Amino acid sequence: MGQVVQATLADDPGFRLVGGFDRPGAAGEGVVPADQAIAASDVVVDFTIAAASAELAPKVAAAGKALVIGSTGFDDAQLAVIREAAREIPIVRAGNFSLGLNMLMGLVARAARALPAEAWDIEVVEAHHRRKVDAPSGAALMLGAAAADGRGADLAKVGRRSRDGITGERPVGEIGFSAIRGGGVVGEHSVIFAAEDEILTLSHSARDRSLFARGALAAARWVAGRPPGEYDMQDVLGMKDG
Amino acid sequence: MGQVVQATLADDPGFRLVGGFDRPGAAGEGVVPADQAIAASDVVVDFTIAAASAELAPKVAAAGKALVIGSTGFDDAQLAVIREAAREIPIVRAGNFSLGLNMLMGLVARAARALPAEAWDIEVVEAHHRRKVDAPSGAALMLGAAAADGRGADLAKVGRRSRDGITGERPVGEIGFSAIRGGGVVGEHSVIFAAEDEILTLSHSARDRSLFARGALAAARWVAGRPPGEYDMQDVLGMKDG
Amino acid sequence: MGQVVQATLADDPGFRLVGGFDRPGAAGEGVVPADQAIAASDVVVDFTIAAASAELAPKVAAAGKALVIGSTGFDDAQLAVIREAAREIPIVRAGNFSLGLNMLMGLVARAARALPAEAWDIEVVEAHHRRKVDAPSGAALMLGAAAADGRGADLAKVGRRSRDGITGERPVGEIGFSAIRGGGVVGEHSVIFAAEDEILTLSHSARDRSLFARGALAAARWVAGRPPGEYDMQDVLGMKDG
Amino acid sequence: MGQVVQATLADDPGFRLVGGFDRPGAAGEGVVPADQAIAASDVVVDFTIAAASAELAPKVAAAGKALVIGSTGFDDAQLAVIREAAREIPIVRAGNFSLGLNMLMGLVARAARALPAEAWDIEVVEAHHRRKVDAPSGAALMLGAAAADGRGADLAKVGRRSRDGITGERPVGEIGFSAIRGGGVVGEHSVIFAAEDEILTLSHSARDRSLFARGALAAARWVAGRPPGEYDMQDVLGMKDG
Repeated sequence: MGQVVQATLADDPGFRLVGGFDRPGAAGEGVVPADQAIAASDVVVDFTIAAASAELAPKVAAAGKALVIGSTGFDDAQLAVIREAAREIPIVRAGNFSLGLNMLMGLVARAARALPAEAWDIEVVEAHHRRKVDAPSGAALMLGAAAADGRGADLAKVGRRSRDGITGERPVGEIGFSAIRGGGVVGEHSVIFAAEDEILTLSHSARDRSLFARGALAAARWVAGRPPGEYDMQDVLGMKDG
Repeated sequence: MGQVVQATLADDPGFRLVGGFDRPGAAGEGVVPADQAIAASDVVVDFTIAAASAELAPKVAAAGKALVIGSTGFDDAQLAVIREAAREIPIVRAGNFSLGLNMLMGLVARAARALPAEAWDIEVVEAHHRRKVDAPSGAALMLGAAAADGRGADLAKVGRRSRDGITGERPVGEIGFSAIRGGGVVGEHSVIFAAEDEILTLSHSARDRSLFARGALAAARWVAGRPPGEYDMQDVLGMKDG
Repeated sequence: MGQVVQATLADDPGFRLVGGFDRPGAAGEGVVPADQAIAASDVVVDFTIAAASAELAPKVAAAGKALVIGSTGFDDAQLAVIREAAREIPIVRAGNFSLGLNMLMGLVARAARALPAEAWDIEVVEAHHRRKVDAPSGAALMLGAAAADGRGADLAKVGRRSRDGITGERPVGEIGFSAIRGGGVVGEHSVIFAAEDEILTLSHSARDRSLFARGALAAARWVAGRPPGEYDMQDVLGMKDG
Repeated sequence: MGQVVQATLADDPGFRLVGGFDRPGAAGEGVVPADQAIAASDVVVDFTIAAASAELAPKVAAAGKALVIGSTGFDDAQLAVIREAAREIPIVRAGNFSLGLNMLMGLVARAARALPAEAWDIEVVEAHHRRKVDAPSGAALMLGAAAADGRGADLAKVGRRSRDGITGERPVGEIGFSAIRGGGVVGEHSVIFAAEDEILTLSHSARDRSLFARGALAAARWVAGRPPGEYDMQDVLGMKDG
């Protein structure tokens, strides 16, 4: 992912790469000492692993720079380190940097809040390539959770992961999932709100993995110069401003 | 369904209603004796039940008229009676008279024959209203069977009815199903052929149940004056002509 | 439309019809004097014409009831009358009562505000039945205006109504329209946000015209007991609450 | 395109690259004399320009090899040369090697033949990236022509390239086009058959330009060992077999 960010950044006149470094121990071309790279930068973009990110954040905080974290799988101790660093510097952390998918998540939450469950049934449909080994996708579950939250419901209780055979009528409030697999599909997600005589569908289609790099750079552009704090992609998109 | 056919027929200058009758024992307005209605007609359209249809077919055959049968659930003895009648008159029999859905079935079989399973993954996705109590829909299973047939495969072996949890990679040749439920959706069916970098999607959307009546009338128009024989909607659509 | 509202209302235990009246001079069954109907009601639902609505509003205001107005084509003098009435009673006025379409409009404005025009191209696609005589649809233009507003742009300047022949590259900031016509399609609207490697699509599909009656009743339910003021469907949906 | 074919071929154990050559006068790495490459091959894949292809075809014919031609813009004299060569060797020539898009074209022709124009309205919708300078796309026009052919109509007469303003009701038999432009969309084509209460939609989505190389290789695999003759992608797909 670091390489994709680097390639995408090269096309964008708003950025200048001051240095790349890898997680401790990893080998890489054009790699400079982390402290040197941090000192020369306005924003540090970090796609490594949770442990390396937890080591890096205090260094970036000490240098007073902004930070974008794309690593995932943090444990509580590591999250506490990030939180501590965010008292001094602005940090955007996200599991998925797709601007479109994060926008979709914000819109789904909003629509779910406004459209009453008695009249509007919610279904989440995702499609991915044939090599994906699990279902539904993590993003589909996040969309389902956003929908449930919007309604004040708990996805663990209202989620329906598949339908086969005699299912009975669809219960009010259920949130259904469907997982389509085939070919090289990068990632499609749709959230359907179906009423008696109208249907609202909110969809995202990822066409190339470089979109995640673009999103990380959008986060970097946004976070530079912000007040200290922990932010996510909903902040970057301005979806929390009402 | 008889009433919907009657209403649709009233709007179509190509038809004249010479009489309606119901299955023996049923009460109905404007009903005439069956024999009298048959004698006055060119084509008899029969949406009753299998037993009533098996009684009716020999009468229509004796009168030398054409017949359209929309009843379902025939047993072998009843089917033999229909077949016998079809030696004397042309009979179109179908479980679903949607022209679009039957066209979709023909196109799916054709595409599945031409697109090799190694490169093209097939998925069937259907959506229906919240009151539907089973999944996948009968039409989805027919589409899956048409796809399997086109490939010389057996749907019972390659069909995958749902995905949840750790599924592993998608096996070559699998035909997947997804069932979406919500609101008042009359019936949507999509068959997706997904390759590494392109996707072919063939879809049908039913917007009102009167489409079935229109399809039955299209069958009636087609069957009048045909040679004796058993026909289906693929014949009516000319999909068997190559 | 009054009749559709009446039929839809009959199925809803939350409502009781206390009387129907038509615009002055019109004949109708089961019609009662307007004053009598207003006095017996909590909410008056008015689908007439602008002139009749401007006559009705002061009467409803005098009676202290809530009002839902579905008439369109108001001139400035008529709008002033409505505004005056709204100082005493709560009034919801809308050109289109589809909950889903109004929700779509709110979501489009929000997405357009957050997704920069340099990276995200907006296209509005609508489909309607073959009998529609103009293009694009009024709702498509409203969606385009919502998108332009979200970006601080003027649809009159950035709108592109069709493309044919040598068009040149798509200018940044353009909002394109496409009008599909065919069959009996009630009304489909999609707003596409297309970036270099991802696409966000927000869509609404109307399946039956009774949805407008349902929306008017949702507005009636919402407006009863509100403070005086002028409201629209974005208020009913709670889309202005942030 | 030659390079994309080469890269795709490297991943496919069914092929071995025996040599590459460019059109006369062009410089290129790893290029061998054309005669030597032809002699060593079973199938020659030619993506050059019409003039170069017209020079190459007789050489391939003399060597008795099969030929796949992806060049476009042939004049009559050049086509005559190709035809002459095709008396001795099998030649597949196509303007677009996407298997899915060619399949779509065959299915559209078939559906248009079976679904009467009185009841089914045909619309062609395409979407491409913001850098495309013309509309509708060549493939959209080919799909429209396939639909018109299927109906025995002339696209020049029934085609409608855009709709804006007061259009009047849609005439029976019209074939409409819509062109969507935005972001980096590689290429989407949908053909919609809309009836009063049902809609059949046949769609293709190209996700990466390498699909054209895959299609050329599928043609190469198919053409090796065929009888002499001129073939196209409908032959490769087996769509002419009925």
